[in-house]
Amino acid sequence: MKIALDAMGGDFAPQAAVDGAVLAAKALAGKAQIVLIGQEDAVQPLLAQHGAAAADLQFVSASQIIEMGEHPAKAYQQKQDSSIAVGYRMLHAGEVEAFCSAGNTGAMLVGAMFSVKAVPGVLRPAIANFVPKLHGSFGIMLDVGANAECKPEMLEQFGELGSLYAQYVLGIEQPKVGLMNLGEEEGKGTTLLQAAHNLLKVNPHIHFIGNIEGRDLFNDRADVIVCDGYTGNVLLKMAESIYDIMAEKKLHDPFFDKFNYEAVGGSPILGINDNAIIGHGVSTPAAICNMLMQGYQMAHSGISDQIKSTFKS
Amino acid sequence: MKIALDAMGGDFAPQAAVDGAVLAAKALAGKAQIVLIGQEDAVQPLLAQHGAAAADLQFVSASQIIEMGEHPAKAYQQKQDSSIAVGYRMLHAGEVEAFCSAGNTGAMLVGAMFSVKAVPGVLRPAIANFVPKLHGSFGIMLDVGANAECKPEMLEQFGELGSLYAQYVLGIEQPKVGLMNLGEEEGKGTTLLQAAHNLLKVNPHIHFIGNIEGRDLFNDRADVIVCDGYTGNVLLKMAESIYDIMAEKKLHDPFFDKFNYEAVGGSPILGINDNAIIGHGVSTPAAICNMLMQGYQMAHSGISDQIKSTFKS
Repeated sequence: MKIALDAMGGDFAPQAAVDGAVLAAKALAGKAQIVLIGQEDAVQPLLAQHGAAAADLQFVSASQIIEMGEHPAKAYQQKQDSSIAVGYRMLHAGEVEAFCSAGNTGAMLVGAMFSVKAVPGVLRPAIANFVPKLHGSFGIMLDVGANAECKPEMLEQFGELGSLYAQYVLGIEQPKVGLMNLGEEEGKGTTLLQAAHNLLKVNPHIHFIGNIEGRDLFNDRADVIVCDGYTGNVLLKMAESIYDIMAEKKLHDPFFDKFNYEAVGGSPILGINDNAIIGHGVSTPAAICNMLMQGYQMAHSGISDQIKSTFKS
Repeated sequence: MKIALDAMGGDFAPQAAVDGAVLAAKALAGKAQIVLIGQEDAVQPLLAQHGAAAADLQFVSASQIIEMGEHPAKAYQQKQDSSIAVGYRMLHAGEVEAFCSAGNTGAMLVGAMFSVKAVPGVLRPAIANFVPKLHGSFGIMLDVGANAECKPEMLEQFGELGSLYAQYVLGIEQPKVGLMNLGEEEGKGTTLLQAAHNLLKVNPHIHFIGNIEGRDLFNDRADVIVCDGYTGNVLLKMAESIYDIMAEKKLHDPFFDKFNYEAVGGSPILGINDNAIIGHGVSTPAAICNMLMQGYQMAHSGISDQIKSTFKS
C-alpha cells in the first residue's frame, strides 16, 4: 500500500513534511510505503540528510507549488504540475491509496472535487475533525468548513458519513449521532436544524440520539457530531485556541492535550471516491506523521468503499 | 435606585436568591436597594435568618412561580402573579430600575417582549453574554440564544447593541466589533454572514473590524462579537463545559476561572426599553449577587436610554 504526501504543503514545508514522512515510513514499515511529491531540488537534499532512514521513501517530482494565499480553484487549474494536482492524479489513477497535504485547504477540496470526485449520491463532501472525549479517545465532528451553507439533506448525509468513519476507522460499534443544536428538545433551533432533525431521526443507516448542545461536545452523548461547516469551523478553531492558551500557560492535562491538532494530524474529506486528508497549516513533523498514519488507517479500513456502497442504494 | 430580583428563580431558589440578595444589598449599600419578589412564606423565613443584614431589603409578594420546564409564553400569560410577571410589571411601572431572574429563560424573554417591550427600531432584542479576554476583563458576545434564526439586519443591530453596552457599561472606548465567521477575508461565510458584513461595514455607529474566527474569541481582536443565537449559544455552552472540566480536574488559572458564569452572574437582554438580566439556572449566591451588581451597573450607566436614542434616529 502507498500513502502519498504533499512535500511542499504547510508553513514549515518541505522540512517538516520530509521529517514527518521519515517518521511515518518507520512506523508503517512493512505495511505501507510513503510517496513524497514535490520539487526535486528542495526535497532530495532533505531526504539525503536522513540517509538510510529515507531509503524506503519514494519520491515523485512536481515542479509547481500552490501557495497558501492563492485562489484555490484558479491555482489548481493553472498549476497542473503542482504537488497537490500530481497527488490527486496519482490517487485517482490508483497509484496511491491515500493523499495527504498540509497545504492550501481550498485547493485540496477543489482537487478532490475535480479529480477523484464526490461519491455518487453524496450531495456535498464534508471535512471532518476529531473531538477529544473525556472518557475515551475521539469523536468526530462534521462539517468543519467545506460547506458554510447547508441544506437539511446535507446535514443528514454528514451524519451518515461520520457514522461510517466512526465505525470503520475509529472502531466504534453503533456510533451515536447527535445534531448540534441550542437545546435538547425536539423542535429546537432554526428551520434547517428542525428539518435535519426530522431526516436524521428516520434514517435507517444511523443511530441518531437527537439534539446535543455545546456542552456535550466532549462528553459521551454523541460519537458523531453533525453541524454546518460554519458552526463546526468556529467550534474547532475555538477549541484549538484553548489548547494554545493552555500550552502558553503551561497547563497540561492528558484530556486537554488531545486538543492539540498534532495528536490526530489531519482532517479527512469524507464523501469522495478516495482517501484524502487535509493537515493543519502549521503542521510539525509529528503532525505530518500522524496524518500519514491516519491515511493508512483510512485506506486499510476500506472506508471509501463503505461510503460508496452505502450511498449507492 | 431599586434593583429587583426574582426570589423564586433558579435551581437553588429561594435559598440562593435570598443569600445572594443579602450579599448584593451589602455591596450596594447607599447606592441601591434590592427588591425581592416571591412567595411570602418561602422568602420571609429565609430573610429572617439573615437578621439585621436583611433589614435593607424590600419584599414584594408574588403568589405564583413559573417553573423551569413550563412553556414560556403560556406560563407567563397564565401566571400573572408569578414572580417574573410581577417583576416585569414593577420594571415597566418604573418602580425598579432593573429586574434580574435566574428562572425560566424563555419566560424572561417573553416577559420582556410583552411588558417593557422592544425599543422602537430594534428588530429583535438579543441575549448577550460575556467573553473572558486574555489581556483585559471581558468582551461581549451576542446573540447567545434569543434568536436562532437571524436576518442580516438583526446581526447588524446586535453589533450596535453590543457596542453600546461595551461602551456604556463595560467602559470600553470605541469598542471593536467583529463578525464571527469561518475566515477573516471579506466574502467568507454564508449569504447571511456576507450580507451582515456589508451592513456592519458601513454602519456609522460602530467600529467594525471585519470578520473574526473561533480562535479570536479570547484575544484582543474584537470587544463585541456578533453572531446568530444558535452559534452564540453553542459557543457559550462549550466554553462553560470547558470551565466545568477544568474545575473537575482541579486545573485553575485566573483566565480560565473567568469562564465561570458566577464571575458575571447573568446575561442582559439588550434592545428592550428597560434593564433585564437572565441568570444561569444553577446560580449560586455569588452568581446572584454579581447579577444584581450588573443590574445596578446597567441602570447606573443609562444604557437603555442610550439604546433608545440610538435607534430613534
